[in-house]
Amino acid sequence: MITLVLVGIGTGNPEHLTLQAIRELNAADLILIPSKGTQKADLAELRHTICAQVVTNSATRMVTFDMPRRDATHPDYHKGVDNWHEAIAQIWQETITTHLTQHSQQDCIVALLVWGDPALYDSTLRIASRLSPPPRAVRSVPGIMSLNMLAAAHTIALNDIGAPFVVTTGRQLRDHGWPQGADTVVVMLDGECSFQQIDTKNVTIYWGAYVGMAEQILLSGPLEQVGQRIITTRADARAQHGWIMDIYLLRRQPSA
Amino acid sequence: MITLVLVGIGTGNPEHLTLQAIRELNAADLILIPSKGTQKADLAELRHTICAQVVTNSATRMVTFDMPRRDATHPDYHKGVDNWHEAIAQIWQETITTHLTQHSQQDCIVALLVWGDPALYDSTLRIASRLSPPPRAVRSVPGIMSLNMLAAAHTIALNDIGAPFVVTTGRQLRDHGWPQGADTVVVMLDGECSFQQIDTKNVTIYWGAYVGMAEQILLSGPLEQVGQRIITTRADARAQHGWIMDIYLLRRQPSA
Repeated sequence: MITLVLVGIGTGNPEHLTLQAIRELNAADLILIPSKGTQKADLAELRHTICAQVVTNSATRMVTFDMPRRDATHPDYHKGVDNWHEAIAQIWQETITTHLTQHSQQDCIVALLVWGDPALYDSTLRIASRLSPPPRAVRSVPGIMSLNMLAAAHTIALNDIGAPFVVTTGRQLRDHGWPQGADTVVVMLDGECSFQQIDTKNVTIYWGAYVGMAEQILLSGPLEQVGQRIITTRADARAQHGWIMDIYLLRRQPSA
Repeated sequence: MITLVLVGIGTGNPEHLTLQAIRELNAADLILIPSKGTQKADLAELRHTICAQVVTNSATRMVTFDMPRRDATHPDYHKGVDNWHEAIAQIWQETITTHLTQHSQQDCIVALLVWGDPALYDSTLRIASRLSPPPRAVRSVPGIMSLNMLAAAHTIALNDIGAPFVVTTGRQLRDHGWPQGADTVVVMLDGECSFQQIDTKNVTIYWGAYVGMAEQILLSGPLEQVGQRIITTRADARAQHGWIMDIYLLRRQPSA
C-alpha cells in the first residue's frame, strides 16, 4: 500500500518550491523522475537539480523511469491520450514495485514532481487514478502555476476589478474564438500562436516563454502591433532551445 | 526612491511560502503589515507569525499601519473602491516616509505580504500605481492561490481534459448566471452562497473554507444534495471565527 504525493514545483525556477513541497519531498521514500529523452533534457535535468538542492533526507531515493511517448498520429485524440496515460500508469507501477520490495511490510510514500500545479492542465492526477492496486491515498501539493508567473513577470493582475477571466487552450481559441462573457483570456498549451485567429482590435497581449526560468522572454503590447514579433521570437527561441513552453494573456477593452 | 515588492504568501498556511518569497522578505528594508482591527485579528497575527518564522535578516524592519476601511455604503461601488485605494496609498506613503529617513540617501526595498497571489482579485498592484512619488520599480512574487489550494484539498484538477474554465466572483454569478462556454467555474469573493441562483441539475460543487489553514472545512457532492449543508456550515463557521474566506468550484456535465 502506497501513498502517492503529487508535488507542484512551479515553472522551472527552483525558488518556486514551497516549504510544504520541500517537506513532502523529504518525507518520501521514493521520488519518481521521468526521463523524456534528449529533446527536453534540460527540463529533466532540472528535476534532478531541484531534488539535489532540497532533498536532505538520505533515506529518500530518487528513481528515474522512461516516460512513454504519446502517439501523436492516433486518429482519435482522446483515445490516444487514454492509451498514453495507461502506459504511464503501468511504468509507475512497475517502478514502484521494483523499488518497494524492502518496504513491502510497511507503508511507503511515493512522490512525483509536477511542473506548475497538479490541478492545471496536468494528467498526473488522472494517471494516478489508474494505478492497480490503487494507492491508499493520493495527496496534492499546490504549486506556482505558469499563469501566476506570467502575471508576476509582467506585473499585471489576471482579472480586471470584479471581472471574470477564462483559462483555456490554444485549440479552444482556434475552434471557438474569443470565449463569451469575459474580456480576459489566459491561453495555455498553444503550439500554433492561435491568437492569429482572433480579431486583434483593442486587444492587448502579455506573452511569456520559459516564464520564471533564466531563459524567460517577455513581450507585450497591442496584439496588432506585437503579434508578428511574438511569432518570430517564439520560432527563434524554439529552434535555439529545442523546445518551448509559453503562455499568454489577452485582454480586450470591455464593450460599452 | 523605493522598490516595492509584492510578495504572494499563499492562503494562510506558512508552508505555502516559496523560497523566492522568503528571499525577497529577507532582502527588504521595510515590511509593511496592515492592521485591520479585531475582526480579522487572527489573519493579521498570521502575517506576524509568518515574518517571525522566515525573516532572519535583523536589518529588516516590520512596521504595522492601520488599514483604512472601505465605505461599503457608498452608492457607487467603483467610486467607493477608488476612494479606499487612494486612502491606502496615502497611508503606505506616510508609513514609508516616516521610516525611510535614515535610508533617504540610498535605495530602499519595501515589501508587502499579499494573501494568495498579487495577480488574483487583489488590489495591491493597483494601489501601488497610485503612489506619489512613484516607486522606482514594482516587483510581484507569485504565490499559491486559494483556487490551487481548493483543488489540492479536494485532489481534483481545475480543468477537464483540454477544456476551459472560468474564474469569477459571486456577484458575477448572481448577475449573469452560469458563464457561457465553460463547464467549470471557480467562484471567489462570494459572501452570499450565490450558487443558489443557478440551476443545480447535473452540477457538482467542491467547496472549501479557510483552505490550507488549520481551520479548513471541505464539502463536495451534487449541488442539489450538499448546497443547503454548505450554507449552514458556512454560517456556523463564520459565527464561530468572526470571519470566513471560502471558495468553490462548480462543474456541470458537458452538454452533448
